Amino acid sequence: MMIIKLKKETTTDQVEHIVKIFENFGMETRDISGNVYGVLGIVGDTSKLSIRDIEALEGVDNVTRIQEPFKKANRKMQEECTVIDVNGIKIGGGNFTIMAGPCSVESRDQILEIAKSVDRSGAQILRGGAYKPRTSPYAFQGMELEGLELLKEARKETGMPIVTEIMSVELVDRFVKDVDIIQVGARNMQNFDLLKALGRVDKPILLKRGLSATIEEWLMSAEYIMAGGNNKVILCERGIRTYEKYTRNTLDLSAVLAVKKLSHLPVIVDPSHATGKRWMVKRLAMAAAAVGADGLMIEVHNDPENALCDGAQSLRPEQFEDLVIDVKKILEIVDKKM
Amino acid sequence: MMIIKLKKETTTDQVEHIVKIFENFGMETRDISGNVYGVLGIVGDTSKLSIRDIEALEGVDNVTRIQEPFKKANRKMQEECTVIDVNGIKIGGGNFTIMAGPCSVESRDQILEIAKSVDRSGAQILRGGAYKPRTSPYAFQGMELEGLELLKEARKETGMPIVTEIMSVELVDRFVKDVDIIQVGARNMQNFDLLKALGRVDKPILLKRGLSATIEEWLMSAEYIMAGGNNKVILCERGIRTYEKYTRNTLDLSAVLAVKKLSHLPVIVDPSHATGKRWMVKRLAMAAAAVGADGLMIEVHNDPENALCDGAQSLRPEQFEDLVIDVKKILEIVDKKM
Amino acid sequence: MMIIKLKKETTTDQVEHIVKIFENFGMETRDISGNVYGVLGIVGDTSKLSIRDIEALEGVDNVTRIQEPFKKANRKMQEECTVIDVNGIKIGGGNFTIMAGPCSVESRDQILEIAKSVDRSGAQILRGGAYKPRTSPYAFQGMELEGLELLKEARKETGMPIVTEIMSVELVDRFVKDVDIIQVGARNMQNFDLLKALGRVDKPILLKRGLSATIEEWLMSAEYIMAGGNNKVILCERGIRTYEKYTRNTLDLSAVLAVKKLSHLPVIVDPSHATGKRWMVKRLAMAAAAVGADGLMIEVHNDPENALCDGAQSLRPEQFEDLVIDVKKILEIVDKKM
Amino acid sequence: MMIIKLKKETTTDQVEHIVKIFENFGMETRDISGNVYGVLGIVGDTSKLSIRDIEALEGVDNVTRIQEPFKKANRKMQEECTVIDVNGIKIGGGNFTIMAGPCSVESRDQILEIAKSVDRSGAQILRGGAYKPRTSPYAFQGMELEGLELLKEARKETGMPIVTEIMSVELVDRFVKDVDIIQVGARNMQNFDLLKALGRVDKPILLKRGLSATIEEWLMSAEYIMAGGNNKVILCERGIRTYEKYTRNTLDLSAVLAVKKLSHLPVIVDPSHATGKRWMVKRLAMAAAAVGADGLMIEVHNDPENALCDGAQSLRPEQFEDLVIDVKKILEIVDKKM
Repeated sequence: MMIIKLKKETTTDQVEHIVKIFENFGMETRDISGNVYGVLGIVGDTSKLSIRDIEALEGVDNVTRIQEPFKKANRKMQEECTVIDVNGIKIGGGNFTIMAGPCSVESRDQILEIAKSVDRSGAQILRGGAYKPRTSPYAFQGMELEGLELLKEARKETGMPIVTEIMSVELVDRFVKDVDIIQVGARNMQNFDLLKALGRVDKPILLKRGLSATIEEWLMSAEYIMAGGNNKVILCERGIRTYEKYTRNTLDLSAVLAVKKLSHLPVIVDPSHATGKRWMVKRLAMAAAAVGADGLMIEVHNDPENALCDGAQSLRPEQFEDLVIDVKKILEIVDKKM
Repeated sequence: MMIIKLKKETTTDQVEHIVKIFENFGMETRDISGNVYGVLGIVGDTSKLSIRDIEALEGVDNVTRIQEPFKKANRKMQEECTVIDVNGIKIGGGNFTIMAGPCSVESRDQILEIAKSVDRSGAQILRGGAYKPRTSPYAFQGMELEGLELLKEARKETGMPIVTEIMSVELVDRFVKDVDIIQVGARNMQNFDLLKALGRVDKPILLKRGLSATIEEWLMSAEYIMAGGNNKVILCERGIRTYEKYTRNTLDLSAVLAVKKLSHLPVIVDPSHATGKRWMVKRLAMAAAAVGADGLMIEVHNDPENALCDGAQSLRPEQFEDLVIDVKKILEIVDKKM
Repeated sequence: MMIIKLKKETTTDQVEHIVKIFENFGMETRDISGNVYGVLGIVGDTSKLSIRDIEALEGVDNVTRIQEPFKKANRKMQEECTVIDVNGIKIGGGNFTIMAGPCSVESRDQILEIAKSVDRSGAQILRGGAYKPRTSPYAFQGMELEGLELLKEARKETGMPIVTEIMSVELVDRFVKDVDIIQVGARNMQNFDLLKALGRVDKPILLKRGLSATIEEWLMSAEYIMAGGNNKVILCERGIRTYEKYTRNTLDLSAVLAVKKLSHLPVIVDPSHATGKRWMVKRLAMAAAAVGADGLMIEVHNDPENALCDGAQSLRPEQFEDLVIDVKKILEIVDKKM
Repeated sequence: MMIIKLKKETTTDQVEHIVKIFENFGMETRDISGNVYGVLGIVGDTSKLSIRDIEALEGVDNVTRIQEPFKKANRKMQEECTVIDVNGIKIGGGNFTIMAGPCSVESRDQILEIAKSVDRSGAQILRGGAYKPRTSPYAFQGMELEGLELLKEARKETGMPIVTEIMSVELVDRFVKDVDIIQVGARNMQNFDLLKALGRVDKPILLKRGLSATIEEWLMSAEYIMAGGNNKVILCERGIRTYEKYTRNTLDLSAVLAVKKLSHLPVIVDPSHATGKRWMVKRLAMAAAAVGADGLMIEVHNDPENALCDGAQSLRPEQFEDLVIDVKKILEIVDKKM
C-alpha cells in the first residue's frame, strides 16, 4: 500500500489521471482526503512501483510506502528463521557460527598455520582473502588464483569450509566449484550484475552491508540474489560510515536486531572491519553475541606486524582463543549453541 | 606535539616568522623536513593552540595534532578509573549502575508507582524528566518545578537518588540543592555557559553525548566541567545521528571502548533514546554490559501507551525486571558487580 | 493529517481504543485499510501530536505525518516573503544583504579597521563575536562585554548595524539594548530556553542551522521563537556535519532552496564556517547568491595570521572587496538588489 | 612522508625493528621526538604503504600521512588542467560542457525527441541509460543493448556524442566501440575490477562520486583508471549521503573546489540525482557553474510523468532551455566558454 499526498492546487482532472494510471497497473485507488490536503491510498502490490516515479506525476506532492519493498527476504513471507547448511555446519536459527582467518592469504605457511590455529580455538569456517579490494591501485591486491588454491589446501588439512570474497562476475563459476561460501564485499553490495549472477547459482552467499547502505537497501540486495532463485543468503554487519573517525566505521548492532525482525535470513557481525582496532574486537564480538547475532567474522593473523593487509585489526591466535571462550559464555545466556 | 606541513612555495622568511610565533608561546620548533615538503614539529604543551589558527599562518599547508587536547579527562593523567559516589552508590571502576524511570514525570501516582517498581527490580538510581527539551514548542514541555518536587517525594519513598535534566543556568542552584545527579542533555552538550556553571558546583554531572558529537568533542565538554573544578563527570552514550533512519539514532558501542581507553571517567549507555524502539532495549542493554559500560539508563513506564513523551521506547515494569535479570548474567562474565 | 499503519495482529478492541484516543484530542479517524494491513488516517490539527507517542499505542506499527509540524514559519500560512527591517536595511524578499567582519572582536583597532574596510567594500551589517563558543575550555573565549562595547563603537563610526552571538539567557536584555541582530549559534540551535527567551523580545534573531540539524528541526527552532511572538527570524545555513573531512562542514546549498519553499523567512549563507578554508569562500558565496540566498555572512580579518580565532577561514579586506564585486554580478542574473 | 607516533612504553628494540622495516622498503626514518612521545618521520615515496598496516607494528600508536596517496591524478604532478576531447568537444580547462538527456532510454521516439530537443537548447553531449542500476530487482532495469542501439541512432541524427553507464566488465569492448564517454555510476565507484578494465581502454570515462565516498577515495578510483594508462577521466559530483532526507542526497559543491585544487582532472556536477527534485535543478546548476565546475549532467524528459525511471527529477525540455540560458549568464562571470 502507498499513500499519495496531493498538492493544494491539484485539479480534479489530475486526480482522475492519477487514478487511471494505477488502474492500468491493476491497483485500486481510494480517496482518504483529510480536511486540508487531498490524500490517496493505493491498494495492491506496490513493490514494482518506485516512489520517485510516482512523485513525478503532475499534482502529486509526496508519496509514502506503507509496505516494505522486499518480498522473499521478508519475515512476513516466512516466519521461521532460514538455516543454511554449509558442509554440515548450520548457520542461522539457534546456531552460532564463527568464521575466522587472515584478511589476506599471503603464503602457504601463513594460511595453513592460521587455519589450524583457529580450528583448534573453535572457529567453524575459515576466512581468507584471495582477491582484495584496495582503495589504492598501488597496494597489494591479493594472491588471486594462487590464494584460492592455498585456501583449498587449508580446507583439506583442517576440514573447515572456506569463505572468500568474489569481485567479478567472470569468477563465479570458479568460486562455485572451489569455495563453500561466496562473500560479496561492502563495496560490491550494489554491484547488481554480480548479485544477479550469484542469484543463479546454488551456493551460500555472505552479503556484507555496504559502507553507507540502509537496512532496507541491504535487504533489497539480498532480494536481488533471492529473486534469481538462490535463497542461501547470510547477511554480515560490518560497520557503517559516519562522521565519527575514531573507529574505521561505526558498528551498528541495532541493525542486527532490525534485520532479525524484518527478515528470516541469518545475520553475522564483523567487528574487525567495523573498528579497524584489534583491542576493540573481543568486546564487540561479545556484544554482538549478546544482541542476538547468528555468528561472527573475525580476522586472525599469526604475525599481524608483518601482515600485508589490515594487520592493525587482526587478533593474534591466543587472543582469538580467548575471544571464543568469552563469546561462548554469552551464548549460554542468549540460548544459542555453537 | 604538533606537526606542521609547509607549502611547496613557502619562503625561508615565512618559516622564520612561524618559528618566532611559537617561541613566543614558549614552544620549540624542529625542522623534520622530508624530501618533498618542509615539515616542522612543534614541541611543548599545544593544548591551548587551535589547529585552525595555525593553518591561517602564511606558508602553512596543514597541521596535525599528535596529542589529545583534553587534559583532566585524559587517562594519561590518571590511570585508575574515577569512581563517583552518589549517596553511597558507586559509579565507575568495577561497579555497574542502572538508572531507570519514566521519560517525564507526569503525575504523583505515575512517578511513585514507577519508582517503587524499578527499585524492586534492581535499579539503583531513579531518572525522570521535569524539564523536557522538545523539538516542537507545541509539545508537552515537562512539569518543571512541580515535577522536581515529585521526584524528591519519590526519592523519599524509595531511598533512590534521583537524576534529572537541567536546561538553563538559572536553575543550577536549585538542582544542586534538590537532585543527586544533574543531567546535561544531548542538545546542550556544547552549551558552554551551562557547562561552565556546572564546573563550579560540587555535584555529579551526567553528560550525554551530543547528537553528532565526536568522541573528542564529548570529552572536551567533560573537560569544560572539570576545568572549573568539578571532576564528577559521568558520560552517557545515547546514539549518534547517521543516515540510517530505521532507528532513531545509531547506538555507538565502540565509543564506550574508546572512552574507557582515552579517559578515566565512567561511561554508561542509554539504549532507550538511542533506538526509540522498546523491543530493542533489552538486547542492546545486554550488549552494553558485554562491551564494558559502567551502567545503563533505561526508560520505564507503567502505562507507555498513555505516556506524554517517548512512550514508544519505554519498557513496561515487567520488561525492565526481565532486563535486569539478563544484564546481571552478563555482568558475571565481564566481572562487574551491581 | 497522519497515517497510522496497524500491525497484522491488531485486534478490533485495540483499533477502537485508538479511535477513542484521537476523538479525545478532537480529531477524526478514518479507516483507509488496504488489502494487507489496516491503515487509519487521522484528520485534524496534528501538530501537537508526537509521532513517537502514537507509535507507543498497542497495535500501531508505524506513523507518518502528512503535514509539516511548523505553523508560523510555514509558507502555507504566509505566502509572501518576510522582509525584516534592521535600521533601514531590509533583509528578505528581493533584497540581498552581506554581513561581514571578524570572527572575534580582538581589540579596538582591529574591529574599527575591519568595520571601516568592509563598509567601504559594500557590506551592510557588521559581524563580530564578543562571546565565543569554543570546543576547548583552554581556548580564547572572546572579549565578552568589552567586545560588545567595541562593536557599539564600530557601529557609531560606520553606521553599520551589528550582529553578534548570544550564549546565555541572562544576557538577553543587554543584547536587546545593545545589538541590532542577535545571533544564535549552531551549537545553541536547540537550546530551547534561549529560544523561548528570544521569542519574548522585539529584535531580529539570526538562527544558525545546528551542526547536524535537519531542515525540519531548524524550522521548528524558528517556530520556538515565533511561537513566543517574535516573527523576525533570519535563518543561516553554515554547513552540516558529514563523513567528509576535507572541509570543516559540508555546505548544503539545496537547504536554501528547501527553506525558501517551505517557509517565508529569509535565509542567508555562511561559507566561511561551512568550509573553514579561505580560498573556498568567494566561489561558494557566488554559488549561494546563484541559488537564491537572501544574503551572506563572511569572515574578514585585517591580519588573519594573527587572528585569535578562525583566521584560516577569514578573508583579507581586499579579498572581501573582490568577493562583493563578483557576487553583485550574480545578483543581477537572479534579480536581487543589494 | 609519514609521521609515526610511538607509544609511551615503546622500547628501543621496537624502534630499531621499525626503522629496519622501512629501510627494507627503501625509506629513511628520522627521529623527530618531542618531549612526551617518540615521533618518527618516514621519508620517501610512501604511496604503497597503508596506514593501517603500519599501525599494526608493535610499538606504534598512530600514523599520519603528510602526502596525498594519489599520483597521476594529482595537481602536483601536472599543473595545467587536463582537457579531454570528445569528437571535437572539449571538456576541462576553460570549457563548460552540458550533458543532457533522459535517465533511461525508453523508446525510439522518446530518445530521438529528447535528443533533438536538448541539442537545440545547447547541450553538447547526450546522456541516457541503457543499463540501469536499480535498488529493486523488480524495477525496470533498462532497455540494455536495444537502448544502446537507440542511443547510437540519436547520435547519428543529432551529431551529439553519447555518454551512458556501464555496469559490467564483459560489456567494456562493446561500450568502447559504441559510446563516446563511458559512465561509471556511484554504486560502482569502487568496483575495482571494472575500474581496472577501463584503465586499459582508450576512451573517456565519466566517474561519478560514490554515495559516501570521500574526495580522496574518489580520486583514488580515478587513479585506478589512470594507473592502467587511461588518463581521460572526468569526475562527476552527484551528491553524498547524509542524515538530511529532504533531498535525495546532499549536493557537495565544495567538493568541486577541492577536486580542482587537488587534481588537474575536469569535474562536472549532476544536480538531478543529487536532489531528486526537478524544481531544485536549475538553481543548483547555476550554483555549480558559479563555483567553477567544468560542466553539468542534467536529466531531461519530454514526458516526465510517464518516465519509467526518475521522472521526479527530470526537467521538461522548455525548463532545460531556460536553465541553459541562465547558466550561460553565469559562465560569462566566471570566464568559461560553452
